[in-house]
Amino acid sequence: MNTLKVIKIGGNIIDNEDVLETFLEQFSKIADPKILVHGGGKLATRLADKMNVEVKKVDGRRITDKPTLDIITMVYAGKINKGIVAKLQANQCNAVGFTGADGNTIIAKKRPVKDVDFGFVGDIEKVNTDTIKLLLKNNLIPVFCAITHDENGQLLNTNADTIASELAIGFAKDYKTELYYCFEKSGVLKDTKDDASIIENINTKMYKTLLEQNIIADGMLPKLNNCFHAIQNEVYKVHIGEPEMLFHKIKHTTILA
Amino acid sequence: MNTLKVIKIGGNIIDNEDVLETFLEQFSKIADPKILVHGGGKLATRLADKMNVEVKKVDGRRITDKPTLDIITMVYAGKINKGIVAKLQANQCNAVGFTGADGNTIIAKKRPVKDVDFGFVGDIEKVNTDTIKLLLKNNLIPVFCAITHDENGQLLNTNADTIASELAIGFAKDYKTELYYCFEKSGVLKDTKDDASIIENINTKMYKTLLEQNIIADGMLPKLNNCFHAIQNEVYKVHIGEPEMLFHKIKHTTILA
Repeated sequence: MNTLKVIKIGGNIIDNEDVLETFLEQFSKIADPKILVHGGGKLATRLADKMNVEVKKVDGRRITDKPTLDIITMVYAGKINKGIVAKLQANQCNAVGFTGADGNTIIAKKRPVKDVDFGFVGDIEKVNTDTIKLLLKNNLIPVFCAITHDENGQLLNTNADTIASELAIGFAKDYKTELYYCFEKSGVLKDTKDDASIIENINTKMYKTLLEQNIIADGMLPKLNNCFHAIQNEVYKVHIGEPEMLFHKIKHTTILA
Repeated sequence: MNTLKVIKIGGNIIDNEDVLETFLEQFSKIADPKILVHGGGKLATRLADKMNVEVKKVDGRRITDKPTLDIITMVYAGKINKGIVAKLQANQCNAVGFTGADGNTIIAKKRPVKDVDFGFVGDIEKVNTDTIKLLLKNNLIPVFCAITHDENGQLLNTNADTIASELAIGFAKDYKTELYYCFEKSGVLKDTKDDASIIENINTKMYKTLLEQNIIADGMLPKLNNCFHAIQNEVYKVHIGEPEMLFHKIKHTTILA
């Protein structure tokens, strides 16, 4: 089986033009089939400010109302996604930008209203791999932003980490799939104040122990849940750390079954 | 040879949600392979107003400076393109949104500065058909917005009518290609004040006569130049009129060699 790399980059890469450019230059050189997934960065918040669109929150969690969804669609699928595609093309990487609506690739359902109505937020129900497989076989590189759709004409704001893990799971039958979460930390840390305290390997058993010992930082919990969800669904390996881990042997966290 | 329909819709369809929805519903039912090309409508201007980005003009012609290009990318490739893709998906039409950067499909060059620097405006140099042919063969429907790229990482604002004619020309070797310009008029009119004065057929010889007689309205001239450029480059037929011409036999202008 061929290896497929599903690589997610976060705001710390997207928000810095030079860092992004260097990353995309290196990304273009990866020989294996690959899919890039990007988050939104600070640009959406800045645009909302400029347009006087209020960021609505309930219990500290953001609500995606209609004006916010419009901004997200413009920034994620427009400015960021097409900027990345153009820069990849400049590096001879034949990229094609995607939301989950394009090619009906990622179908989601508007999150049901319980205590809170999160608005146009999508929970992923299905990944259709046919179109993406066709692209990969023809040396085309899909670049996904964090937007899905409900098959009824509604776009939905969807967590980019979750999109990356669900894509990795979707392709696990056809490829030996490796999932990479690139972010600003060197990996999962034992002590969030000590960048050297990287836990280099975590398996399911260790993860349970770490959870019991309350060692996993709050911000890391949803990311690790995505990782283990992927691992439990045939994804071969998950890597968490700085983007450099993709190109050189540097310390980071590897997650295995 | 199979027929390919390249269909361009303008602002009058995009700016009215109900009209757009009805159009996309009917578009989805077209049995032939098809490509949709859309302009921008009034949304970009409205967003520029909201963001206090000044529309710059020289001799009445718009200049695409960096902030304007960002707005165009957000509105055309983001909001409008993905909105159309999601609505087509709701009609079981497996659409994929494109700029010319995606799949390196349309390569342009920044318009050279002579008297006026038009900014990030692209003149098309080449259409790469491979990726789009792959999609069409697999029943995927490309939806193009009016943005191209220069292969060096720069997105460029490009006239949607020209994108449609260059795409039609690009596919003329592989398909019997028909180009449709859908707009608010019933066709090319002898008398712009009389909607019934449609010229139903124009060929190259007649076009020359019409030009000599000064019958073609100023706004129609660039459109007709695009039409004849297409006809002179192996495109089978060009149609100009209301979108209804696609679905029912109604009077409109047909352009033939």
